[in-house]
Amino acid sequence: MRIDGALLARRLDELYAIGAEPEGGTYRPLYGTAWAAAGERVERWMKDAGLRTRRDAVGNLWGRADGKGKSIVTGSHIDTVRRGGRLDGALGIVAGLTAVEALLKDKGKPRRPLEVVAICEEEGSRFATNFWGSRAITGAIDAVDADMAEAMRERGLDPTKLASAARDDIDTFVELHIEQGAVLESAGTPLAVVSAIVGTVHLEVTVTGRPDHAGTTPMELRKDALAGAAAMVQAIESIARSLGRPAVATVGRLRVEPDQINVVPGRVVFTVDLRHSDLNGRRALEERIRSLCTTVSQERRLGLAIRVSQEKPPVAMHPEVRALLARAAKECGVQATEMVSGAGHDAQVLAARCKVGMLFVPSIGGRSHCPEEATDPAQLQLGTAVLARALELLAY
Amino acid sequence: MRIDGALLARRLDELYAIGAEPEGGTYRPLYGTAWAAAGERVERWMKDAGLRTRRDAVGNLWGRADGKGKSIVTGSHIDTVRRGGRLDGALGIVAGLTAVEALLKDKGKPRRPLEVVAICEEEGSRFATNFWGSRAITGAIDAVDADMAEAMRERGLDPTKLASAARDDIDTFVELHIEQGAVLESAGTPLAVVSAIVGTVHLEVTVTGRPDHAGTTPMELRKDALAGAAAMVQAIESIARSLGRPAVATVGRLRVEPDQINVVPGRVVFTVDLRHSDLNGRRALEERIRSLCTTVSQERRLGLAIRVSQEKPPVAMHPEVRALLARAAKECGVQATEMVSGAGHDAQVLAARCKVGMLFVPSIGGRSHCPEEATDPAQLQLGTAVLARALELLAY
Repeated sequence: MRIDGALLARRLDELYAIGAEPEGGTYRPLYGTAWAAAGERVERWMKDAGLRTRRDAVGNLWGRADGKGKSIVTGSHIDTVRRGGRLDGALGIVAGLTAVEALLKDKGKPRRPLEVVAICEEEGSRFATNFWGSRAITGAIDAVDADMAEAMRERGLDPTKLASAARDDIDTFVELHIEQGAVLESAGTPLAVVSAIVGTVHLEVTVTGRPDHAGTTPMELRKDALAGAAAMVQAIESIARSLGRPAVATVGRLRVEPDQINVVPGRVVFTVDLRHSDLNGRRALEERIRSLCTTVSQERRLGLAIRVSQEKPPVAMHPEVRALLARAAKECGVQATEMVSGAGHDAQVLAARCKVGMLFVPSIGGRSHCPEEATDPAQLQLGTAVLARALELLAY
Repeated sequence: MRIDGALLARRLDELYAIGAEPEGGTYRPLYGTAWAAAGERVERWMKDAGLRTRRDAVGNLWGRADGKGKSIVTGSHIDTVRRGGRLDGALGIVAGLTAVEALLKDKGKPRRPLEVVAICEEEGSRFATNFWGSRAITGAIDAVDADMAEAMRERGLDPTKLASAARDDIDTFVELHIEQGAVLESAGTPLAVVSAIVGTVHLEVTVTGRPDHAGTTPMELRKDALAGAAAMVQAIESIARSLGRPAVATVGRLRVEPDQINVVPGRVVFTVDLRHSDLNGRRALEERIRSLCTTVSQERRLGLAIRVSQEKPPVAMHPEVRALLARAAKECGVQATEMVSGAGHDAQVLAARCKVGMLFVPSIGGRSHCPEEATDPAQLQLGTAVLARALELLAY
């Protein structure tokens, strides 16, 4: 089945223009003006494609072609980070819609209900929340704070009706997304079936030394918290490297006290973001990092405290959906690789209620969450064609 | 000659109470109320000791016993850092005054002019300046900014008369100071003659990598600016350690960008404070650090820029004064060690115009610039006695 690459590109361009920021990139925070305008545009496309549209209690936008039994759903989130790119979220909506439109045109009415969803929020784009839309679909939200309730009311949504957004009639959710890393590009592979979404642990590590005069304290009499933290940062990198893919560990934030040019650092607080697709692998990574930090702190007579600030388990994609996506790719003439997603996606939340699967297309230079976010148009077209074939296999 | 330890302690306590801060420590910023009150107290003590007092154009307070030829001067600065301790600066003034008072009482009128000075500022305690008082004495100040001029006028000082503070009639300046480090304490030595004041270089190092998604970017595809900076921080510590005393190198400030828990650091800026008593030693230290940072940045394909933000050459104490101070110590029954000062002192500025020398007494735990700043009272008394003997040798 033929996917119109020009139509795909035009729709992506149109969405990208909604919320455009003066310095480049786009910003569509949840329940904002740009967010609402983008939803209206998508709703018009859905209607033009012959889908029946509705908004649920949190503002997820659904376009449906009826059928029998549980639904086959595709889509992604419509909100963006600040200075977000053209593809993150938008691709999953536009590709899903374009694929379903092509199917309805070529193959007629589906056997099963076939739906496209523009999920209201995934990025934490405005409030201190993530996966707001998909959590509502799984019925996992029971409260909303006052600011958010006010923002919902401004969009005509009733914050007391959250529970009505929950669904238990979805059979399978499939999503096309950009990789947001450079694995596919560096391997020269145009498409991947996601095997799992990594589990994440966030650690906050506090290293305590003694603030001393930088001129009067000989090296051997110091308890330098930053020198100790530097040894830990280096070792954390080495451990993740030596464990190999898909283990990653990142020290993204680091704060020095008293942060004066002529004072030996007395205290350093840094974060570690640990990810692995396998729970045991992630635990091994965390265990080795904890052990290493303890060794460094003891050798250097430094205080050490490690706190877990967030913990999310890895989520495997459903084996049936993985096999089906691989088959769809093959039938479209491409051998898809399998890979682990290092980023979080709505599929990991929806997995609690239905079968889930994802396709990745390459990100040029691995760039994402920035105006440079881009993918070869031929790969966007290919990914959409494979998605369409998968939806056909599932719904027809 | 006997020094009254109780008098010494009482005067230090009195000064420490002037500018006392509610959370502990004291603060006497240049030209402030506490600064002025402390000066008045010292002036009264000077007069009681039989010294003729005067204030110069920048507010340095001088107490003089007349004699023939160039002056022998002792003293220190009267300003303090925020939450400063009881001894930094104050000891040099109180000990100098108490020593001169005892000399005048025991030995009568000196052969040479003998002066005690309370230098107005050394700490950069209020304005973006250091060594303001001693620089004025050497005639090295030719301008004053508007805020400072206003503050001077409030104290009855005329900012257009700066040049009149310059002196060319000082033969020798000697100062008793606390070590502000833990070298003497850890060696079990009660007194040191300072051989030199270290030279300082401040570097600002900028490491540029690429900000990537912490989940989607495999370890081997990263350009992590913080991992690179951590390798540099560790190596800087190792280089200074391997060069041994008196080389010290400190990374005191470090800033990460974008400083997000789930983003690989794209840029890190950190400072290096390098000190050595020997210019060649300091240059060697800087050269090895530059070379090492370059190697790390090349290995990791990171950008590197190193900027010198400050450079002060080391200053040797005058050999005659060093010998004289060692002799005075010996005559007081103590074998003084020689050591390099890692901190800056007025002596390094005054060295441009006269012979200079310094004595150090130990700092308990190496603590300074904090309320915990303390020295064994017996060592304060000993240091003052040695200072008195040195002044006697110089002025009588």
